[in-house]
Amino acid sequence: MSAPTDTAAARAGRPTLAVVGATGAVGTVMLDLLSTREDVWGEIRLIASPRSAGRRLRVRDEDVEVLALAPEVFDGVDVAMFDVPDEVSKEWAPVAVERGAIVVDNSGAFRMDADVPLVVPEVNAAAARRRPRGIISNPNCTTLSMIVAIGALHRAFGVRELVVASYQAASGAGQSGIDALQDQLAKVASDRNLGSRAGDVRAAVGDLGPFPAPLALNVVPWAGSLKDDGWSSEELKVRNESRKILGLPELRVTATCVRVPVITTHSLSVHAVFEQELTAASAREVLASAPGVVVSDDPAKAEFPTPADVVGTDPTWVGRIRRSLDDPHGLELFLCGDNLRKGAALNTAQIAELLAEELTA
Amino acid sequence: MSAPTDTAAARAGRPTLAVVGATGAVGTVMLDLLSTREDVWGEIRLIASPRSAGRRLRVRDEDVEVLALAPEVFDGVDVAMFDVPDEVSKEWAPVAVERGAIVVDNSGAFRMDADVPLVVPEVNAAAARRRPRGIISNPNCTTLSMIVAIGALHRAFGVRELVVASYQAASGAGQSGIDALQDQLAKVASDRNLGSRAGDVRAAVGDLGPFPAPLALNVVPWAGSLKDDGWSSEELKVRNESRKILGLPELRVTATCVRVPVITTHSLSVHAVFEQELTAASAREVLASAPGVVVSDDPAKAEFPTPADVVGTDPTWVGRIRRSLDDPHGLELFLCGDNLRKGAALNTAQIAELLAEELTA
Repeated sequence: MSAPTDTAAARAGRPTLAVVGATGAVGTVMLDLLSTREDVWGEIRLIASPRSAGRRLRVRDEDVEVLALAPEVFDGVDVAMFDVPDEVSKEWAPVAVERGAIVVDNSGAFRMDADVPLVVPEVNAAAARRRPRGIISNPNCTTLSMIVAIGALHRAFGVRELVVASYQAASGAGQSGIDALQDQLAKVASDRNLGSRAGDVRAAVGDLGPFPAPLALNVVPWAGSLKDDGWSSEELKVRNESRKILGLPELRVTATCVRVPVITTHSLSVHAVFEQELTAASAREVLASAPGVVVSDDPAKAEFPTPADVVGTDPTWVGRIRRSLDDPHGLELFLCGDNLRKGAALNTAQIAELLAEELTA
Repeated sequence: MSAPTDTAAARAGRPTLAVVGATGAVGTVMLDLLSTREDVWGEIRLIASPRSAGRRLRVRDEDVEVLALAPEVFDGVDVAMFDVPDEVSKEWAPVAVERGAIVVDNSGAFRMDADVPLVVPEVNAAAARRRPRGIISNPNCTTLSMIVAIGALHRAFGVRELVVASYQAASGAGQSGIDALQDQLAKVASDRNLGSRAGDVRAAVGDLGPFPAPLALNVVPWAGSLKDDGWSSEELKVRNESRKILGLPELRVTATCVRVPVITTHSLSVHAVFEQELTAASAREVLASAPGVVVSDDPAKAEFPTPADVVGTDPTWVGRIRRSLDDPHGLELFLCGDNLRKGAALNTAQIAELLAEELTA
């Protein structure tokens, strides 16, 4: 154990970090990450809604009191990470900036703002340097579950088109999503007669929670809110954010987003078409050496990524790598990424660490 | 109630049907269908492995004794429906033909045989007439979950390419798949701490049953056996069978098949490209009038197909109909079909009914 005075000395001169939304599903993972990753921060301030203020949370082996969100809590803060609903970010991120902080925001409020970079450190770290509004956005968890791998393939082969189908976890809808799935599972697990007649599962699960249909013993082809022409907001995020992160505003992207009864870790089936011809072997080689990517691809040994095996880990896992049978430019992939880690907290922490490095350089 | 003599009189002169594999998951649904659909059959003989012989099963409000599979049980049979493993069909379908039956086979044994038609009555009923081996194959359940809808769209717009991602139910792996999922769910449902650490679910579920990874609280990107270049047999079936049923041997088809923790009803996300330009509205119009298809597509009212709502019904349900944003020839769809009904027993029954009509014409 290091003496508290040593810790205090080491932290002097390091940037101050604020974690806004410290008590949520992503906030909880964030405190875990801040406690286990290399410590680059001076003070860490935990901020939440007034309802949660006064609670004490564990971070870096210390109990830290949660402060209520207010303008003055950002005084002296160098980097503020926000994981709160869109409307809270929209109101409070500019306040934090005004008080001198650089904001890393995990909501959808600023992601498509031309003056706000959308950053995935393994793909476009340099974009974080130009931030005229003082805000950097963290991409949506579904986009993040594939974009590190797609970015690596793009650098090698030039991506031209993505067709995405998602298998999204309940925790993408926050703690209420996790609770709803677990409540529903408890209700259906004991009845072995469910699952063969329409409506039986719907009657058994009771409360749908934040989902528009039962999630236990079901899949639900919907995530987010309704946009034009029948698209869900989640599907348009995958499209628009992939284009922005890769710097390819004309990239062909189409997605169908589907919720599955998994607690945490999003999976995606991706059909990708590239400028250059490629093979499964050449794609596998690129992915195997890409930072933040792990290849798990040996079906003969039952090796492929699944949420149950990937949850709680940092990388994007890629398997089922196949060259399209009809197109030497096409590739099929199945990817898994922990939507609360790389899909949210981890990528936010990585962006904040880029800023810490810049601030202390 | 009709008097038994009336029933016997009505059945005289009608063709004799054999149901081989009467005790399995699909066989059970078949007996239900034979009891509820318009009765076109004379005698119905139930056949299974010697292990199940002697059991009495209910069909058409009568208890019928199950006979052990043997050459002589096919004597006098006009149509024999097989739902048994590939190797059993391979051995016994020719025996049934030799004894004078026309075989409708739901295994993979004959589907790609050029002398065996692969029939979906709503799509290619005429193909059932040319059957030089006396065998008609029923397509794989995953192909069947989409092909009625795709066939209708093809007639209107000319299909050029399909990119498919599946969400396949446990019962696609038979009764052992259902049992494994239910056993696993019972084990994980009570532990609310599962789902955030890698390996926890794997440790909790114990027996994997017929699946290569846990299925409860998970999705598994694998179905079938390993074929060349990392493809699964299920993925190649979707490709090869779609081509054969649609009569388009050069159709571009790529699929990634994924098992999900649903008891029964397969779902598919499909990106389809057509020769002609189309709109979501024109596609919806075609689908709405297609036999065997129900359109459920109003996300504002939470209307889209899900397995829990579709299971136990006959049609292919289609929702989330969107025109691709980058391609006026492209369409996105989400489809659900009961894999034991249209995906297996129902389509087999429909083919058999085509034959009954032909035999009594």
